[in-house]
Amino acid sequence: MEAKWITALKSTLGEKYVRTAVVDRHSYSYDGSFGEYVPEAVVQVASARQVSEVMKIANHYRVPVTPRGQGTCLSGGPLPVYGGMVLDTSQWPASIEVYADDLIAEVSPGTLTSAIHQEVEAYGLMYPPDPSSAHVSTIGGNLAENSGGPRGLKYGVTKDYVIGLEVVTPEGEITRTGGRTIKNVTGLDITKLIVGSEGVLGVITSATLKLIPKPKAVQTIMVAFASMETAGRAISTTLTSGILPSKMEFIDHACVQAVEAYEPSGLPQDAEAVLIMELDGHEETLDKELQEILTIMKQLEATAVQVPETAEAAARIWKARKMVSPAIATIKPTKVSEDATVPRSQIPLMMKKLGEIREKYEINLVVFGHAGDGNLHPNILCDERDQAEMKRVEKAVEDIFQAAIDLGGTLSGEHGIGTMKSPFMENEIGIAGVDLMKRIKQSWDPNNIMNPGKIFAEPGQRLVLSRE
Amino acid sequence: MEAKWITALKSTLGEKYVRTAVVDRHSYSYDGSFGEYVPEAVVQVASARQVSEVMKIANHYRVPVTPRGQGTCLSGGPLPVYGGMVLDTSQWPASIEVYADDLIAEVSPGTLTSAIHQEVEAYGLMYPPDPSSAHVSTIGGNLAENSGGPRGLKYGVTKDYVIGLEVVTPEGEITRTGGRTIKNVTGLDITKLIVGSEGVLGVITSATLKLIPKPKAVQTIMVAFASMETAGRAISTTLTSGILPSKMEFIDHACVQAVEAYEPSGLPQDAEAVLIMELDGHEETLDKELQEILTIMKQLEATAVQVPETAEAAARIWKARKMVSPAIATIKPTKVSEDATVPRSQIPLMMKKLGEIREKYEINLVVFGHAGDGNLHPNILCDERDQAEMKRVEKAVEDIFQAAIDLGGTLSGEHGIGTMKSPFMENEIGIAGVDLMKRIKQSWDPNNIMNPGKIFAEPGQRLVLSRE
Repeated sequence: MEAKWITALKSTLGEKYVRTAVVDRHSYSYDGSFGEYVPEAVVQVASARQVSEVMKIANHYRVPVTPRGQGTCLSGGPLPVYGGMVLDTSQWPASIEVYADDLIAEVSPGTLTSAIHQEVEAYGLMYPPDPSSAHVSTIGGNLAENSGGPRGLKYGVTKDYVIGLEVVTPEGEITRTGGRTIKNVTGLDITKLIVGSEGVLGVITSATLKLIPKPKAVQTIMVAFASMETAGRAISTTLTSGILPSKMEFIDHACVQAVEAYEPSGLPQDAEAVLIMELDGHEETLDKELQEILTIMKQLEATAVQVPETAEAAARIWKARKMVSPAIATIKPTKVSEDATVPRSQIPLMMKKLGEIREKYEINLVVFGHAGDGNLHPNILCDERDQAEMKRVEKAVEDIFQAAIDLGGTLSGEHGIGTMKSPFMENEIGIAGVDLMKRIKQSWDPNNIMNPGKIFAEPGQRLVLSRE
Repeated sequence: MEAKWITALKSTLGEKYVRTAVVDRHSYSYDGSFGEYVPEAVVQVASARQVSEVMKIANHYRVPVTPRGQGTCLSGGPLPVYGGMVLDTSQWPASIEVYADDLIAEVSPGTLTSAIHQEVEAYGLMYPPDPSSAHVSTIGGNLAENSGGPRGLKYGVTKDYVIGLEVVTPEGEITRTGGRTIKNVTGLDITKLIVGSEGVLGVITSATLKLIPKPKAVQTIMVAFASMETAGRAISTTLTSGILPSKMEFIDHACVQAVEAYEPSGLPQDAEAVLIMELDGHEETLDKELQEILTIMKQLEATAVQVPETAEAAARIWKARKMVSPAIATIKPTKVSEDATVPRSQIPLMMKKLGEIREKYEINLVVFGHAGDGNLHPNILCDERDQAEMKRVEKAVEDIFQAAIDLGGTLSGEHGIGTMKSPFMENEIGIAGVDLMKRIKQSWDPNNIMNPGKIFAEPGQRLVLSRE
């Protein structure tokens, strides 16, 4: 017999928006991270009113609700770990209303982030956050996870561009936070509390985004180094020179090799480390900054420098950078992708520690990422069918987290805590810090139905990558 | 007989740090806003450990604790409205540690904000938030109130530059939030929840601030207009031209007159409205942007344009802008200073509504403020001994709040809710929105001892400016 809550949902939303077929449920059982959890139903919503009705039914029947955009999350946010329903916002019609005079846009949660980029550029404006998944991920997911991306260095992350939200609370109230002004200190900052809360505090049903004038010109630079160490010095010398690049990406030797094997892209194959930078601003200024950077790179014994002269040539370099993730995924069946982040000055030390971890656990560990803001992506390439290897990977991941924390960094720069990192939160922020977060969760969601199993560890929970 | 909690504080902190003399208590009974509340004791602290001990004693004896920096607050944050103790952080030794490589600084709460500006500039860096009170207010107060300032337009506000905090919770736990990296998504964003929480969620004992490279050049421009309307169009034409000034300040005719009477400063006395702008960036770029702005101003029939050629001449203009607040304070005994904020495009409409409110209630209402981000400062000049006038002022203030909300704006852009605006919060964010905030407060501070009487209205509370 059908569960009462499913019947209630069907009569409220209409039968076809409540999917319970095995094939549908399995389609919503995974994301871009690790693990599979099959929900009891998939519920498709397209308005705040509908979300409110769903939350009220869920509360009445005490059924877990796990919101989901396009499921590209790398930390388990959309995984229905306690069953119940996945709340699918991917069918919510895209909507982008630009208010150019006010330098803002109102967007619906199901809108692809790249569509926002395109739309606001037509007004000479820019929405800076640029997660690598922008062309396939929804803004709703970006908001829930506070997505980052290469431009974080100069422009910050998703949260820095959200000034207002419409949110449905865990108990089904539709509420507005913040507003349409850059300055707003009316009450506690619920907007920034909800952005990045990974779906445990409510469902975002609309967002007001802050925009900036689009820079008039951009210039890409690619530089190769014969050692990690010189690349590390190039990063810190550039960043203390007074120049703030809009992007500063790092790719190690193994990632370069993987990209060139996967799809030859013209990356310097003999380099131990490659930096790809982008400057943006006025044309006159860019040329001056470019010359300064070339001087720095020469002093630091870069082995090769490429300054693409056309937009197409620059786009090829950035495409090669985007290839890293899919390319390394072909090396072995399983990819464990981390985003431990350290203060910029600690990048060379973190690189050294990552090298030691690779040796110690005999794992295939490659590194790329957003060097300019210390947000590295160590990726471990492994095979989840190999129990012994996965045990070593678990230990390596723990060591990576601890290394980042020891260097004054964080467990997660942009992917989120989700299911896998929750056992480590106390190491970084202490018992009292986690307790403050739990009190908020408890006070807003007393029945614990809003994305349960995320960010807070169960007693005794630990990282498990092997299938025991 | 001395209250037990005072005895406990004296034995913990030392007698001289717990002040109970009438003169001391009266010195801490007011701030830059309205009203006087005499605390039972003033407690001077200089470490997180001491704050923790104070909070534990306060919890044990259920005594209100009101944190205070230099008391320049314009919304009542440091007023001990329910008595108890004022927690004075102004004697906390200033401390600014700059980590130039990481583009961050660690500061103690008692540090003057202008000292931070100076210190980081020595490293070629900038801490952008610049409340007009920076030379007399502490960073602790700025953090509690999420202070803004002229640079909000381009650079955002205090919150945008805080990436980590040390906080003592209402129950006396010392905890760390955020960290030293720009990207950090480990758990809920407690950092940005506490910044701007007006002392109701905890006591900030240390902060990690994000810095940026200091712009290489700045250029000031002062423009006079024969009408509000043309000034309004100049603001929006400039902001949609692709140029983002670092400051864009507005002064109305009455404010100009007041400044020139108070201290002749060379402001254009016949102007109906004056805009003072600052561009920053590279020298080459500034010149180009300056020419574009001059063209816009000519098209919009500016009656006078001044482009100061020396840093001293520019400083004189900005000093005149800073004179507005003290100058208008001399017009009548009482100054009611508001900070209602609207989306930029609504500035001309808001100016019109303010004119109507001035007529309707026959009040002396002048306007200046941060036009670029819609953050106006309507100031009502009155005499608090005149009961009839104050009744009209109360109604005018209510109308100002409602006008801002009706135009898609907010009650408060940068001063905070404090004591006076709490009755209006529900108008802006609804009952459900206020309820979410109250739940957080209740879950963190079950005994309600942390700055009670702030931001949340008592049942039936309304704005009272007259002394009944």
